Amino acid sequence: MNCDVKTVIAPVNIAVIKYWGKRDEELILPLNDSVSATLDTSVMCAKTSVCANPHFAEDEIWLNGKKESFSNQRLQNCLKEIKQRAYNEKSIDDIFLTWKVHICSENNFPTAAGLASSAAGYACLVTALAKLYKVKSDISSIARLGSGSACRSVYGGFVRWHAGVNPDGSDSIATQIADSSHWPQMRALILVVGDTKKKISSTIGMKRSADTSELLKYRVQYCVPKRTDDISKAIKEKNFGKFAEITMKDSNQFHAVCMDSYPPYVYLTNISHTIIDLVHKYNEISGETRIAYTFDAGPNACLYLLENEVPKVMSLIQHIFPSSSDKFVTGLNFKEEGLNEEFLKILSIPIQAKDSIKYVIYTKVGDGPTEIKDGSHLLNKDGTPVKSVLI
Amino acid sequence: MNCDVKTVIAPVNIAVIKYWGKRDEELILPLNDSVSATLDTSVMCAKTSVCANPHFAEDEIWLNGKKESFSNQRLQNCLKEIKQRAYNEKSIDDIFLTWKVHICSENNFPTAAGLASSAAGYACLVTALAKLYKVKSDISSIARLGSGSACRSVYGGFVRWHAGVNPDGSDSIATQIADSSHWPQMRALILVVGDTKKKISSTIGMKRSADTSELLKYRVQYCVPKRTDDISKAIKEKNFGKFAEITMKDSNQFHAVCMDSYPPYVYLTNISHTIIDLVHKYNEISGETRIAYTFDAGPNACLYLLENEVPKVMSLIQHIFPSSSDKFVTGLNFKEEGLNEEFLKILSIPIQAKDSIKYVIYTKVGDGPTEIKDGSHLLNKDGTPVKSVLI
Repeated sequence: MNCDVKTVIAPVNIAVIKYWGKRDEELILPLNDSVSATLDTSVMCAKTSVCANPHFAEDEIWLNGKKESFSNQRLQNCLKEIKQRAYNEKSIDDIFLTWKVHICSENNFPTAAGLASSAAGYACLVTALAKLYKVKSDISSIARLGSGSACRSVYGGFVRWHAGVNPDGSDSIATQIADSSHWPQMRALILVVGDTKKKISSTIGMKRSADTSELLKYRVQYCVPKRTDDISKAIKEKNFGKFAEITMKDSNQFHAVCMDSYPPYVYLTNISHTIIDLVHKYNEISGETRIAYTFDAGPNACLYLLENEVPKVMSLIQHIFPSSSDKFVTGLNFKEEGLNEEFLKILSIPIQAKDSIKYVIYTKVGDGPTEIKDGSHLLNKDGTPVKSVLI
Repeated sequence: MNCDVKTVIAPVNIAVIKYWGKRDEELILPLNDSVSATLDTSVMCAKTSVCANPHFAEDEIWLNGKKESFSNQRLQNCLKEIKQRAYNEKSIDDIFLTWKVHICSENNFPTAAGLASSAAGYACLVTALAKLYKVKSDISSIARLGSGSACRSVYGGFVRWHAGVNPDGSDSIATQIADSSHWPQMRALILVVGDTKKKISSTIGMKRSADTSELLKYRVQYCVPKRTDDISKAIKEKNFGKFAEITMKDSNQFHAVCMDSYPPYVYLTNISHTIIDLVHKYNEISGETRIAYTFDAGPNACLYLLENEVPKVMSLIQHIFPSSSDKFVTGLNFKEEGLNEEFLKILSIPIQAKDSIKYVIYTKVGDGPTEIKDGSHLLNKDGTPVKSVLI
């Protein structure tokens, strides 16, 4: 019996106000609001196909070409909640909810690079399941059960995840601050830094900080509420200088909280700090803030900047961080700009060891999850993965 | 005409509750209380000779063997204030206060190593001048005008510098929590880390943090007052575990504040972080907190520990941080202890590159400044430096 396969692509998002620390570990409820930009799925995305069939013996999942166990609690929570929602909404025949599902998902970028792959993955999964079960209501709170920041990947443009106050998490949802067409000049450069050091997972790090960092309490109560309001305003007014300043300060504060935890832990490497110095010097020489950096739970930088700054910054990055790769930059097209010797002299950032930055992804703000209707599914009509995805 | 030379030696101190940020730049008034241990002058000290003479044409100073300008504002402030104090106390004939002074000072440890040399230096200078002018009252507030933390080097043992509230700084003084005989087992190991990176000075760093760090406000208002009380209690009760935990948390919080500043700055290197990891793992394996680390505005670690732990820790440091120097450890005598292979395996800290730690100073808690009466002055009776100090 053939089944109806639903396929969705979903974006990654990079936070400008950071999510760090949970008030409920089970329901993945955060201590504070966070804000992110959703990045264009044409450059980076997760892709997920789902289908259901009365003849499937059990729920099955394939991730990036490998069969995985379905016992993952977060995965089960997402499936259970979306079925519950379908049942409440009476969106589909109840019998359909008893059928087992097959899920096949992949990212078009390296999962291990620390590039918010779980956010894209769970947003994609939950959106695909919502299509399958015809759920119409907001599903950001269900994506949140998979991976906290996944709730922000459910919308395009600039997105705010509200911490909420309800113990059941019903008000811990994402809302859109502005859609992807609002600030069309906004660009992002993701600098993937070679990472040799074993790092603490974000789940463990968050828990340790929530348990031990005195400063996190103040961040949650006073700093983040003001910053969230201020950056929402900066986004609405397209005030890049303000947007950039808040973004950098919030990234720094998050990493300060890691250091204030007990025992302390660090995600930034010497190369990360060189990027920080480079951005501050660039802005200082420019006489205004033209680039913002932000770092998640790893050494990779995401630079936000406006389109007209890209040629110069791209040339500069390739100058300071020489690469042995012929595919150093991927993503959108750009022109390079010759570098002014005087500028480099004033900047006085030494040229770094080859391949200190492994590669750069050039992208922009984009839309939320989208259903793919061209038939390029990851599952065949019988519920088996299409050959090309298997490794 | 011969003059009466006064010579004093004074100790360094290493803070366990950190001073970071001023409420008054001119008077060097801190934002918060701080606490330190004063270290034994038999291992590290500053030595200063002073004399005054009606025939001296001008005030003169020699520092570490080199003639320096007397125009330094902090130096002038110290001299002016101690003369004012002598005048108020009528401790000496007024005419004596009109004579010019000669000052000669040196440290018995490398000034550039970032080892609180200015604290020892100004405590020494101010104490020597107090002897010269027979000032009897508390001089910690005058030493503070030279270098904030110098006020803590005016006393031995464990010392608290009270931030005070008076705008004129009259209550921003140091007091002794316990003298050097109170906790005779307390030891300190100073690990001098090779530092190639140009770092931001503590004066500039403090100012930047006071101006820009949101988290510093909370630290000053809530964290430090509680920690200062708690660590004073731990010192009085000789509760090493508590003392160590607060010490480490406060060091981490200080470095978190550096990261929360804008632009952020860092003092800790990869080697510093390896030392942090080593200490936490050592304590974890030991089943109790037996070592504390603390870092000032640089990559050097100061480890506090009790005497009976020294043999094992010293062997471990020499194992993890191999050295090409035959004078790797200086200071007090100690015995080494064979390392348990099983312990090293559980610890699983990789052996670091040779000379990652340049040298180790082994010392203990000691007394405050002391007048030297054996005649080993740094100035001749005619006010010229003795030959041996000149380089």
